[in-house]
Formats: sequence, C-alpha cells, structure tokens
Amino acid sequence: MDDPLSSWNDTATKAAIVSFVDRATRQGSPDFVPPAERIAVFDNDGTLWCEQPIYVQAVFIEARVRALADRHPEWKEQEPFASVLRGDPKGVAAAGQKGALELLAATHTGMTTEEFSKLVVDWLATARHPKTGRRYTEMVYRPMLELLAYLRARGFKTYVVSGGGIEFMRPWTLATYGIPPEQVIGSYGKLKYEVRDGTPVLVKLPAIGLIDDHAGKPVGIETFIGRRPVAAFGNSDGDREMLEWVTAGRGLRFGLIVHHDDAEREWAYDRESHVGRLDKALDEAKVKHWTVVSMKADWRMIYPPAVERTP
Amino acid sequence: MDDPLSSWNDTATKAAIVSFVDRATRQGSPDFVPPAERIAVFDNDGTLWCEQPIYVQAVFIEARVRALADRHPEWKEQEPFASVLRGDPKGVAAAGQKGALELLAATHTGMTTEEFSKLVVDWLATARHPKTGRRYTEMVYRPMLELLAYLRARGFKTYVVSGGGIEFMRPWTLATYGIPPEQVIGSYGKLKYEVRDGTPVLVKLPAIGLIDDHAGKPVGIETFIGRRPVAAFGNSDGDREMLEWVTAGRGLRFGLIVHHDDAEREWAYDRESHVGRLDKALDEAKVKHWTVVSMKADWRMIYPPAVERTP
Repeated sequence: MDDPLSSWNDTATKAAIVSFVDRATRQGSPDFVPPAERIAVFDNDGTLWCEQPIYVQAVFIEARVRALADRHPEWKEQEPFASVLRGDPKGVAAAGQKGALELLAATHTGMTTEEFSKLVVDWLATARHPKTGRRYTEMVYRPMLELLAYLRARGFKTYVVSGGGIEFMRPWTLATYGIPPEQVIGSYGKLKYEVRDGTPVLVKLPAIGLIDDHAGKPVGIETFIGRRPVAAFGNSDGDREMLEWVTAGRGLRFGLIVHHDDAEREWAYDRESHVGRLDKALDEAKVKHWTVVSMKADWRMIYPPAVERTP
Repeated sequence: MDDPLSSWNDTATKAAIVSFVDRATRQGSPDFVPPAERIAVFDNDGTLWCEQPIYVQAVFIEARVRALADRHPEWKEQEPFASVLRGDPKGVAAAGQKGALELLAATHTGMTTEEFSKLVVDWLATARHPKTGRRYTEMVYRPMLELLAYLRARGFKTYVVSGGGIEFMRPWTLATYGIPPEQVIGSYGKLKYEVRDGTPVLVKLPAIGLIDDHAGKPVGIETFIGRRPVAAFGNSDGDREMLEWVTAGRGLRFGLIVHHDDAEREWAYDRESHVGRLDKALDEAKVKHWTVVSMKADWRMIYPPAVERTP
C-alpha cells in the first residue's frame, strides 16, 4: 500500500502520529474515539503554511494600503500608514497593537463580506513569495497536507484554528487544505446586516469579535465547535493554550508542535523570533508529552512540487 | 419505497419541498447544487420544537432561579427575580430586556461550560411540558425530524440557527435532531479561559457575544459557516432576515415558514403572539415565494409517538 505519509521520514515523530491514529480509530482499541468526536484542530501560520519572512496577511495588508493610498493622501504623514508605504517594518511595529488595529480597520472593514473575499482571491492569484517566487497557497507544507488527508481518511474532521482573519482564510482553505469555510476558525470582526437597494449584504465593521490567539483559541474552539477536540497541531506560543486545552481532556489526546529548525530548506526560528515565537510552548511540550516535529529531521520534503501555471 | 416524509400530507407544501430537493440534487439538473454547498439552516423554537406556552429556555431559567433562591434571599424583593419566584410572567415581562439579561447573567454565567452543560442535561432529564407531560426533547415536530433526515440523506448539512442559547442547545441536539454541536449556532456569551488548580476551564461571562435573532441570524451564519446556505426554515419574525439573506443568494434557493394554525393538536398563533410572533415574515412570504406550512393541513402528525421510560 502507498504510504499516506510519504513526505515524513521514518522517525519517532511519524511513529507517534501513526500510533495515535491507530489507537483512536481501531475497533476494539481501549482508546477508541467515536467518529463524531474525532476533531483535530490545526493552527495555520507556521503550521500549515509559511509565516516567514512575515505573516502572509501582513503582506496582504501592505498591498491593500498601497492600493488605497491614492484615496488617502494623508497616509504619507500618518502612522502606521506612512511606515507601511515607506516599506519600514520597524516603524509599523513601533505603532504597536493600536497601529495594527488601524491597519486592519483601513484594509479589512467598510466593505461587504463578498467584496472582501474577492479582494483576497484576486490578491492571492498574483502575489508571490519574496524568496521562492511561489504563490502563497503553494507555500504550504506537504507533510501537513498529507497529515490532514490521513486524518480525514480515518474519520477525523479537520479544522483550522488560527490567529489570522477568518475571512482572510475561508476563500482558499477548501482548495488548498481540503477544509471547508465552516471548519475555519480565526480572528473576526463584527458584522452588520443591511439591505442596500433591495440587496441584503453583510458589512465588515471596525469592531473586534474575537482575537483567536493564545487564550482566544480555546474560546474560539468552544464557541464554534462546542466540544473539545482530541488532537491539536501548532507551532508557536500562540498555540500553547489550545494544546493545553485539547490535551487536558479525558481519554486519548494528541498534541504536536512543528519546530522550524531547517534554515536550509525553510527557516530556523523559535524563542527569539518576531513571527511565530516558540518559547513557553517548547518547554511545555516536554512536560506534557507533546510531539515536537523537527522539520529538518522529520520531513522528507517541505513544499509540494511547484505547480506551473500560465501567468 | 418507504416515504421519507410520511408525516407530511400529500399537499402542495410537501410537493414544493420534494421538488426543491430533487432540483438541487439530481445530476444534470440546471439547478444542481454541489454537495459542499448544500447547507440548510433551521430555527429551533417553534420550528423544530414547541415554544408554547413559553420558550423552553425560559422554563429552564425559572427552574434555575428557584434552585438558586436559597443562596439569594434578596431575590424575594428584587425584580425580575421576585416575579419569577412568584410565578408572575407579566412581572418578568415588565422588567424588559434589562431584566432578561439579569436573569441570564444569574442563571447562565459564572460557571464553567461543562458545569452549565450538566445543568441543562440534568434538567431536561426530569422537566416535563405542562400540557402534555412529555419531556421537552419529545416536544419536537415529527415532520421536521423527517425533513432533517431527508435533507441529510440527499447530501445536505443541517444546522440549527436559533435565538436560543448556543450552550443550552448543544448538549441534546445530536440525540434529538441528529445535529452535532458544531452545527448549532445560537446566542452566546463571552468565555474566559483559565487554569484552575492545574485544570484548564472555560468560564461563562456575563457579556454578550451575539444575539442570534433577527439581523443577528445572517451575522451568525456568516461568522460560523462562512457561506450562504441554500435553504432556510423558520416560523417567526425573528427568522425573517435569515430567510431574506438565504433566499436572496444566486441560483436555486428555498425558504419555508412553519405557520402554527393548529389549535387542536398544538397551538394557533401568529401576528399577536407573545412568543414566536409571525407578522412581517408572513406578509413577506407571499412576496418572496417562501413556502408556508399549515400545521393543520400539511402535517399528518405533530409529535413522534410518546416514548415510555422508567421514571
């Protein structure tokens, strides 16, 4: 039989995954998990797709600020927009969370949900990763795509649970991960229902509904799913509470952290990183017996073969 | 073949349902809906289960107030609690939305999600409907149970979208409707993640996340599902915006309203009712070609046969 995890080297990590799935799904196993309870949650940035040199959604925000700059001449003098337009990430960072929220309000709100979805789809169709020249939806980890398919083939329902924007992800997760929009949980803003010239629309408001990161992840999981998943996959301290919540449940549980230690084929970063910082969760992984993936040692390849498309 | 809708009389209403499902699911149909887009949303109170003489969750709230009254001697003098303890619905109504939120805060918050779920399950195991003596989970409409199963057999994913509390419904919807917790959308409060003596918990806070009624229903649908359903089923003005949003989408759409016009077997109420008021949506149904169910004419029976259980 073909190995459903052929992009994984035959290491203890792969063995731990296969052992968990076997114990959870084999009839008669003392750890058997009924199909309806087989829920697995995956962080997105740094777990399913690349988050270096900067989160993909941040690249999208920069593109939107540039596209809207003509209509906002004041942005040339106004932070954090001036730093974005100058291409100065330190200036953007200096504006802190207040600055980030202003950028989100300017680029992610004021339009209808359908208009926003089209902006995302159109941008992803042309944007390219600065290092590899690939589309961002091709900067996904092949071993994780295999893992998603493997879990689904064994009766698991797979969810994305990301700090990223829920509406930034939903337009492309089905084609890219096989995960439909209703199984994508992320940060989200409030919406307003209104009828414009006889046509009902949902308008994106500059008001936060949930920041689905750190302690927000168990909150998002409970609000959207309403039961505790049995397996959680992450890569950073933003996933720590999610792994803690999931693996503290009764019965068989599985927690896994992707450790980016492959400077040659991807990136190597953890405790000091400005994106995807992995510090407390790396220590906790030892105490709580979470499986830690070494990208360098455990993954036979990183990305799927490049897809050639007509430009 | 057995009729999957055997509790429905052979009227134009049943024909409209069957015609919609056939057009949506038959290969080669010009109105074919791909399986992934077959999402159907159902209101709960008055659409799937009985909402007379008062919403079931209101009965639960009263039971909780009585159970907690010993710990709150001040409630004897304090509205809206005093009216609840006196069994005076007019006094409760006079306290308005502010009073309702105080009752929700006192009975639905301050405990963990698991503690609350247990309160609901324990209460439903013993509470009985004042008119029929049945359990509330047996006060469900058999024709609607058949409709749910019929849609699922044809590839639809069925959701509850209710103004009722999301955590009040999730403990029992799978056993009662075949709808798992992750397909239940309702009103919800904010949650707080914390670790108590080494055990992570989610605590229910007295702060509203979403009131999933009227314009809140399309908002809840977009937030949780992320795409527009193709069919919506309701019974009151609280469902009007949901039906409007769903049936305004492109391609084949289906909207249905359950009209309670059966005083003999259930209740007869619409434009002047204190629960499940159906006024604007009944007028709009004509203009927008929503199917209106006459419980009296269209339903062969109302409830499933009573289930005898040891007390």
